[in-house]
Amino acid sequence: MPKEPEITVAVVMGSKSDWDVMQFTSQSLSSFEVRHECRVFSAHRTPKELTEWLDNLEGRGTQVIIAAAGGAAHLAGVVASQTLIPVLGVPMQSSALNGLDSLLSTVQMPAGVPVGTLAIGKPGAINAALLAIGFLARADTTLRDKLAGYRKDQAQRIVHEQLP
Amino acid sequence: MPKEPEITVAVVMGSKSDWDVMQFTSQSLSSFEVRHECRVFSAHRTPKELTEWLDNLEGRGTQVIIAAAGGAAHLAGVVASQTLIPVLGVPMQSSALNGLDSLLSTVQMPAGVPVGTLAIGKPGAINAALLAIGFLARADTTLRDKLAGYRKDQAQRIVHEQLP
Amino acid sequence: MPKEPEITVAVVMGSKSDWDVMQFTSQSLSSFEVRHECRVFSAHRTPKELTEWLDNLEGRGTQVIIAAAGGAAHLAGVVASQTLIPVLGVPMQSSALNGLDSLLSTVQMPAGVPVGTLAIGKPGAINAALLAIGFLARADTTLRDKLAGYRKDQAQRIVHEQLP
Amino acid sequence: MPKEPEITVAVVMGSKSDWDVMQFTSQSLSSFEVRHECRVFSAHRTPKELTEWLDNLEGRGTQVIIAAAGGAAHLAGVVASQTLIPVLGVPMQSSALNGLDSLLSTVQMPAGVPVGTLAIGKPGAINAALLAIGFLARADTTLRDKLAGYRKDQAQRIVHEQLP
Amino acid sequence: MPKEPEITVAVVMGSKSDWDVMQFTSQSLSSFEVRHECRVFSAHRTPKELTEWLDNLEGRGTQVIIAAAGGAAHLAGVVASQTLIPVLGVPMQSSALNGLDSLLSTVQMPAGVPVGTLAIGKPGAINAALLAIGFLARADTTLRDKLAGYRKDQAQRIVHEQLP
Amino acid sequence: MPKEPEITVAVVMGSKSDWDVMQFTSQSLSSFEVRHECRVFSAHRTPKELTEWLDNLEGRGTQVIIAAAGGAAHLAGVVASQTLIPVLGVPMQSSALNGLDSLLSTVQMPAGVPVGTLAIGKPGAINAALLAIGFLARADTTLRDKLAGYRKDQAQRIVHEQLP
Amino acid sequence: MPKEPEITVAVVMGSKSDWDVMQFTSQSLSSFEVRHECRVFSAHRTPKELTEWLDNLEGRGTQVIIAAAGGAAHLAGVVASQTLIPVLGVPMQSSALNGLDSLLSTVQMPAGVPVGTLAIGKPGAINAALLAIGFLARADTTLRDKLAGYRKDQAQRIVHEQLP
Amino acid sequence: MPKEPEITVAVVMGSKSDWDVMQFTSQSLSSFEVRHECRVFSAHRTPKELTEWLDNLEGRGTQVIIAAAGGAAHLAGVVASQTLIPVLGVPMQSSALNGLDSLLSTVQMPAGVPVGTLAIGKPGAINAALLAIGFLARADTTLRDKLAGYRKDQAQRIVHEQLP
Repeated sequence: MPKEPEITVAVVMGSKSDWDVMQFTSQSLSSFEVRHECRVFSAHRTPKELTEWLDNLEGRGTQVIIAAAGGAAHLAGVVASQTLIPVLGVPMQSSALNGLDSLLSTVQMPAGVPVGTLAIGKPGAINAALLAIGFLARADTTLRDKLAGYRKDQAQRIVHEQLP
Repeated sequence: MPKEPEITVAVVMGSKSDWDVMQFTSQSLSSFEVRHECRVFSAHRTPKELTEWLDNLEGRGTQVIIAAAGGAAHLAGVVASQTLIPVLGVPMQSSALNGLDSLLSTVQMPAGVPVGTLAIGKPGAINAALLAIGFLARADTTLRDKLAGYRKDQAQRIVHEQLP
Repeated sequence: MPKEPEITVAVVMGSKSDWDVMQFTSQSLSSFEVRHECRVFSAHRTPKELTEWLDNLEGRGTQVIIAAAGGAAHLAGVVASQTLIPVLGVPMQSSALNGLDSLLSTVQMPAGVPVGTLAIGKPGAINAALLAIGFLARADTTLRDKLAGYRKDQAQRIVHEQLP
Repeated sequence: MPKEPEITVAVVMGSKSDWDVMQFTSQSLSSFEVRHECRVFSAHRTPKELTEWLDNLEGRGTQVIIAAAGGAAHLAGVVASQTLIPVLGVPMQSSALNGLDSLLSTVQMPAGVPVGTLAIGKPGAINAALLAIGFLARADTTLRDKLAGYRKDQAQRIVHEQLP
Repeated sequence: MPKEPEITVAVVMGSKSDWDVMQFTSQSLSSFEVRHECRVFSAHRTPKELTEWLDNLEGRGTQVIIAAAGGAAHLAGVVASQTLIPVLGVPMQSSALNGLDSLLSTVQMPAGVPVGTLAIGKPGAINAALLAIGFLARADTTLRDKLAGYRKDQAQRIVHEQLP
Repeated sequence: MPKEPEITVAVVMGSKSDWDVMQFTSQSLSSFEVRHECRVFSAHRTPKELTEWLDNLEGRGTQVIIAAAGGAAHLAGVVASQTLIPVLGVPMQSSALNGLDSLLSTVQMPAGVPVGTLAIGKPGAINAALLAIGFLARADTTLRDKLAGYRKDQAQRIVHEQLP
Repeated sequence: MPKEPEITVAVVMGSKSDWDVMQFTSQSLSSFEVRHECRVFSAHRTPKELTEWLDNLEGRGTQVIIAAAGGAAHLAGVVASQTLIPVLGVPMQSSALNGLDSLLSTVQMPAGVPVGTLAIGKPGAINAALLAIGFLARADTTLRDKLAGYRKDQAQRIVHEQLP
Repeated sequence: MPKEPEITVAVVMGSKSDWDVMQFTSQSLSSFEVRHECRVFSAHRTPKELTEWLDNLEGRGTQVIIAAAGGAAHLAGVVASQTLIPVLGVPMQSSALNGLDSLLSTVQMPAGVPVGTLAIGKPGAINAALLAIGFLARADTTLRDKLAGYRKDQAQRIVHEQLP
């Protein structure tokens, strides 16, 4: 395990294959200069290692956890049950049911243990980062200005798009 | 319109009939003594009044917005497009499609405009409050202690439940 | 922004990538010599630019608006909430849920703000144009004759198709 | 069959039991003083009577047809195939599949024969009337003013709703 | 139109593109030496030509009609409404919703106008032929023997399949 | 077991509770004076009794078998695998998934063993009888006349229905 | 917590409200005289108490665990990740999505951590008991005889059911 | 047919094409040195051969049967109805409905005849083997140790995975 630096956002995914999509979470966080760490832990296959990692996050200053998984996607819910740090969930697009299973397993949490769920796949991966940034920006005017700038850029790009 | 006090969490729902469910958001926020305001605005029928209300939230100290709607549930997304304050969405259980339409319309947001979506109906209403509290608790140790206490109580209740 | 000529049908899509499908709306309108304009605006990312464009449509003689979007497809509903011009919606085929999310987000509008929704993807793109033409043809016998001709041609093509 | 007066909007439903919902189409049209006629014809059980009725609509000045059916809801599509008058479809909430069958059978029309589809059940019944009125209002400023008034009233009602 | 020979089974599909799948209906009928004819007619685009063709089938000795269509698949239902000859439906696999729309539009017929529906796509295309043959075989012992032979061959093939 | 009379149509359902719906199959057959027998056999719980009953049907002159079941509805498929008599399936409306499970388990049969599937629940129960009658009517002009009469009555009833 | 007797089957449910359905698991086990214990533990709200209980099951002679939960039903999967004792899952019928969410969250487990999933609701509750008994019966001829008797009784009941 | 050796686990699939996926069941069983046999039998096309094979399994010492099928996947249920040996089901990913039909046809069994169902496709194929092994391991400490080792290896692999 690496030495444990401060991280503001902790990103965890259930399988290394989720990185294809979750790299966009990391890129989005990096472009806002938010310190973060991406790890692979499985709710089912490495529950102990997951718990150990989670237990240290409070001490590392983590403000938001982003958890991504597919199929019977228990990772975000299991994470949320073990920490008071707010948890955002990203359902991966599963091969059989196109991510409907991942979505329902992530979002339909019982009262008491919330997971704020984003869209299936890449849009959700980006938006988990942006929602985390939105929370951090409440107490950080520099980040708020960057977020406002991001929104404006986004709008500008669309406005200047030319249809053939 | 009432005079505008400071509110930490702003709750908006698309129809007065959503109150049956969304009162649990309000109750949960109240039990944690979080200042909040609940309003009815429709993304489609009162877009201007909605915008006006949203424009004042930054000045009123709002840290999280919770938006609830059913059917083609655009409210949370439309709110998210007009503010940098983080938005949580609660899909209402619709009469025809049991809330699947509400869920998909709320959660499947495009990259750039996130809505952290909770479960359909009452569990989601409670969890939206708890996730908002989770975020606020990052900077408020009293709230964090309360949240830890709530989790413990919840666990105790389950542990002491007797099956017949 | 181009100078604003009269346009009978206004076509708006949520992303440039929708053009692959929505070009068939444009081609269909062109083949009936209906003046139209195609633009990219996002309900969420460029709400102000969208509103500005919509506000001018009455003055430009627009009779029908066609709006296309995917995922949590709020564009058609948001457009319908801001204008009295009738709105037709085309759900794009989304990558994760095959357009079921787009369809439900577009069609399940609450009472008061209608969106006449067409099929998912290319058939819907063509049919949005044809339904708009059907409305215009009520007051334009030339157009009605063309539409009748189109229907006949369509039938002829099928009748003369030879199976191997 | 009654003598055939001029009707601006023709409303057809597949079964008398649909009237519980489709009366709201009629009420909405009546409140805007739009001349209309409501009839029960089945695409499958009375195809000839349906065709006869449709053939007379052009001569009776009909501008829009609204068709409602449930289950394998072919009525709107069959109507659209027999007339150049624009057709709006209202999917009825079916007993077995909650209207998903009605919705897909109505909206997923092939290119060439459009049906502008509204929401399942009562919201769709009201919105079909409003969309028809929206089209008629293009050429009728009195109607356009009424529609604008309706929208304002609707907004006012929501704004003045008090949560408990 | 070709001269009209006797045909025991009439096969109709909504689009020439359905032939890729429906050729298996034809091959199955041919392998049982059942006289049949395959035609392309659209319930929506060529309703008159369809009706004309159907009206002649009684005179041509047709015992079963097989109808295949995709999307809002009205063809089988529309055929069933115009004839007393029993109708079997084959839902085509649609591009957007994988044939769920085709299936529901074909099978969920209202009481009074039955369509015996087979599986989506190729298995359904083969089985429509086999079910038609099953009916014909009731009054034709030669055909019954062939069908029994087909079943035995099928079983033999499976029994002799070697896994690697 | 009762003495075994000739029966033209054999009706089998997976559970006695299906009779609430399947009585409409029996009533429809009775109203056309088609000899039939209704039995309860389970594909899973009484496979041997089912097989024994099926083995006698050829000898009893049975022309069509109608099989109804819910949930993982294997009855129609299992029946079809054991007889050359054509099999029609009626999916029962299940409590959990509204009959979607019953429908897919009945209709999605592999190539080689067809089940002609009707709508979920009561409409399907009636239509299974009518489709069986349609087949029988091919060789029975009295039955064909009755069927034509039934269709006309059905149309008349709809035509004379008065909306309030 | 009660003193810990030997239990052959351990039954755990996520909420006391699941008892309405899960009592049928208990009744089925009791009628076969299988020692068992039913407990309420939540994967999310009492993860530690759950783990403690699970850790003792090996020592108490448990051969099968049955886990029931609804919504984002992680209980069975979380249990399976913490024990080598085989786990069977029963998806509860959820209020919003009729148990589709419970089913997918329970059954779509990733490779490595199996949950043998039964039907949604009461049939699944009974069948989880019967499948557990089936496993135990492999090494217990008395139990095997009872199971054979149960099957015969079940068949007898169906055979003797009289339709009205 | 091969001479019939002792087999602890019997694997049956409905079609040779299922081998692409079901080879992973076989590989998993082999890697735990569990004696097994893989066969192709169809519930519908080779019911007699299937029954004959099943009838011999008790005598061959079989403890668990694994059955895999797609579409209207009756194989596991039909197997379960003919034996007291516990049955696990693996739904194959079907071409039209992505395996939703296979899953529902396998898992939604009526009370009395359980099928322990695993995930759709490859994860389910592996997990069926592992669940069978889990049962066998109850009475076999060597196997239990291997299973514990497998779990640890699995965890190790994840822990050592490096994200780019």
